[in-house]
Amino acid sequence: MSQVNHVWRLRKRPVGEITDDVLSLEVESIPEPGPGEFLFRLNYLSLDPTNRIWMSDMDQYMPPVELDAPMRGGVCGTVVKSRHPDYAEGAVVSGLGVWADYQIGTPQFVRPLGDTGPVSVVDAFSTFAVVGPAAYIGLLDIGQPRPGETVVVSAAAGAVGSIVGQIAKIKGCRVVGIAGSPEKCAWIQDELGFDVAINYRTQDVARALAAACPNGIDVYFDNVGGEILDACLKLMNFKGRIPTCGLISEYNAEIPVPGPYNYSMILMQRLRIEGFIVTDNLERYAAAIVALSQWMAQGKIKVRTEIVDGFENALQTLKKIYTGANTGKLMIRVQDV
Amino acid sequence: MSQVNHVWRLRKRPVGEITDDVLSLEVESIPEPGPGEFLFRLNYLSLDPTNRIWMSDMDQYMPPVELDAPMRGGVCGTVVKSRHPDYAEGAVVSGLGVWADYQIGTPQFVRPLGDTGPVSVVDAFSTFAVVGPAAYIGLLDIGQPRPGETVVVSAAAGAVGSIVGQIAKIKGCRVVGIAGSPEKCAWIQDELGFDVAINYRTQDVARALAAACPNGIDVYFDNVGGEILDACLKLMNFKGRIPTCGLISEYNAEIPVPGPYNYSMILMQRLRIEGFIVTDNLERYAAAIVALSQWMAQGKIKVRTEIVDGFENALQTLKKIYTGANTGKLMIRVQDV
Repeated sequence: MSQVNHVWRLRKRPVGEITDDVLSLEVESIPEPGPGEFLFRLNYLSLDPTNRIWMSDMDQYMPPVELDAPMRGGVCGTVVKSRHPDYAEGAVVSGLGVWADYQIGTPQFVRPLGDTGPVSVVDAFSTFAVVGPAAYIGLLDIGQPRPGETVVVSAAAGAVGSIVGQIAKIKGCRVVGIAGSPEKCAWIQDELGFDVAINYRTQDVARALAAACPNGIDVYFDNVGGEILDACLKLMNFKGRIPTCGLISEYNAEIPVPGPYNYSMILMQRLRIEGFIVTDNLERYAAAIVALSQWMAQGKIKVRTEIVDGFENALQTLKKIYTGANTGKLMIRVQDV
Repeated sequence: MSQVNHVWRLRKRPVGEITDDVLSLEVESIPEPGPGEFLFRLNYLSLDPTNRIWMSDMDQYMPPVELDAPMRGGVCGTVVKSRHPDYAEGAVVSGLGVWADYQIGTPQFVRPLGDTGPVSVVDAFSTFAVVGPAAYIGLLDIGQPRPGETVVVSAAAGAVGSIVGQIAKIKGCRVVGIAGSPEKCAWIQDELGFDVAINYRTQDVARALAAACPNGIDVYFDNVGGEILDACLKLMNFKGRIPTCGLISEYNAEIPVPGPYNYSMILMQRLRIEGFIVTDNLERYAAAIVALSQWMAQGKIKVRTEIVDGFENALQTLKKIYTGANTGKLMIRVQDV
């Protein structure tokens, strides 16, 4: 075990895009677990759109990270010292932690990953910790798609969006994905089976959506907000549903962002818009994980994980999420399990 | 029976505020009912915020009124000639019709008002046809307020809003109403029992709302959209609900209106926003009318109806709705029942 620790701390709140000075990587001492706590070493650090929310002091769904505190993140690690009977040394754990090589865990936020069966630890952490259940719960519980309906998903080559589209196909829907590069569009259409892929950087989204959705939109799974939300609102069918999973187009905004210009469609088409945070729905995790692992075993759901080595690369890698430079789930590998 | 008919026809679509030239009052002949139809003479014409929607060609929940066609409206009339066995001459009917002294009715849109019991015909038409069920269904089915929760309603001295607030009081909620004059505020607070009334024309709504809702907002019944919606979004509690009944602040807009700047609160607080049109929910009318008539008989719900005499005054009177000059339900009396 190393004698030193490495910790990324939040030094300023980003204004607009994330800059190099918002976090600093510090060499610190390794903390000692107290009674009921355990110390674990990071294996994988999850990088997610929501990281930008936690860095800011906007109204948000958890307290923001305090200035000079360690950055918050989804973590997978191995217990190296324990003062909790349920967390043996060598156990692999995952949950909500911080950007630190060594850190203290408690059962409230970090739990044993358990037996992942035929699924690798990295796939289990990548898919089952957050993004798979988010796709499953958001689409099925909130979106409630019926066979033959049209489902549109934005950030469709992202970790959540790519799974949303595949579940919608399993459920017998017409699926249209919106993504930001020819490669992403090819991946979701040719490999994942989306009916249509729209490149929002090169196509007129409103026109392309209208062509791709001749029967209108029944479910729009929103990961981005902004102009794409507006274009979808215009095409929503009677009693359409909009599960709101993310609004990434707004996170880097430097000035207040207006809501959708087509907001009145909520009234005119009797829409339901519902925001959700996956971790509010822990009681649905078991069902989601069972279904997802079956579908993955059957080849009906494919996931892509982009793994970047080196804890020191965490900040530079995180930036890729907001420029659309990554496909699928993005994470940092500190050490393999 | 008169030998001539009077019909208001849509001559142009309003841009901004309704002007005198959007409708014209014509002297025409009285139509003859065909098989299965009946002819009725107007007693009361309902004037409602939604009239402005129907005049426009914006995306809406029914087809817009066609240019040069009779204006659409909620009507109460008396059958004067019938070729339908269920509609006897002399029967009082109500439903969706047009702005015409004499008009043809069919069972699809116009139904017998039936025995209104101890309730006068004008109160039955005023409260039970649209606005009472809208308040009941929107608040209880969509808003789902629980005792002790805080309910905010805009256009609170309007026909729907005033009933929403009183139902919320019956359900044990803290109720805050937003209205546009000292008289309206006094009425809802002193006579209808709202806990707090806010005058949006003279008060800083965001600040007044924060003071009036120390525990946040659980249900915001939206009749107006715009800045008031934004102020409410900022204060919404976890899993708050926003039944969207109207967006009157936008109907007269000449340029595209942005959605709420605090749209991201939908995600952060896991809100549910749901638009509704009361007539989609006819299966809930019976329950709504039974409850409302009991509450009215018990004095727990008071309604105010502002009646203007003279069919020729319909256009000028309609304008009052969009300037906030009326309180409660607004209607034109052509002849008493």
